[in-house]
Amino acid sequence: MIGQNEYYEGRVRSLEFKNNQGNFTVGVMEPGEWTFEAPIKEWMRLVSGSWDVQQPAGQGEWKTYREGEEFEVPGGTDFTVRVTDTVAYQCPYTGEFLGHLDM
Amino acid sequence: MIGQNEYYEGRVRSLEFKNNQGNFTVGVMEPGEWTFEAPIKEWMRLVSGSWDVQQPAGQGEWKTYREGEEFEVPGGTDFTVRVTDTVAYQCPYTGEFLGHLDM
Repeated sequence: MIGQNEYYEGRVRSLEFKNNQGNFTVGVMEPGEWTFEAPIKEWMRLVSGSWDVQQPAGQGEWKTYREGEEFEVPGGTDFTVRVTDTVAYQCPYTGEFLGHLDM
Repeated sequence: MIGQNEYYEGRVRSLEFKNNQGNFTVGVMEPGEWTFEAPIKEWMRLVSGSWDVQQPAGQGEWKTYREGEEFEVPGGTDFTVRVTDTVAYQCPYTGEFLGHLDM
């Protein structure tokens, strides 16, 4: 089954699935600053566009990532992405998915 | 706004968006054979997994594509994908989106 997730009143949406490579979401984020917590380890990989990322949210240095680049999110940590033009991303994650926090 | 599309009773789902690089969908397809028609030119690019593709649907030779590979779909033509393990894809398309046919 393909899961459907919605965050921040639909300004971030993702589809959730599993295949023989593991667990994934693919999603789209509209312009804005969006904070998420990863209950378990995941990677955020840009499929289209670029973004600035702060890890952990509210504390770390901002870094810019471009299409094809990814950053790792240790389990139990959070991050903020600053999106200026709508992006698509892929998010491989480990183990059983416990769900992002819905902010 | 992030559009949401559903085909084949939810066994194929996609999210639709636009950024300064153009018009896109990102989507997920469960195992099965799925036929789509492209009203306008588009590209189907694998983000996760592999699939076999027949262009045009019911007539062409089957070709296998792997992660990161893409095929072009001329406007007004159709294709069938054979999915054996759930895949994610990105679909850049040209011009104004008129929508896939909902089979």
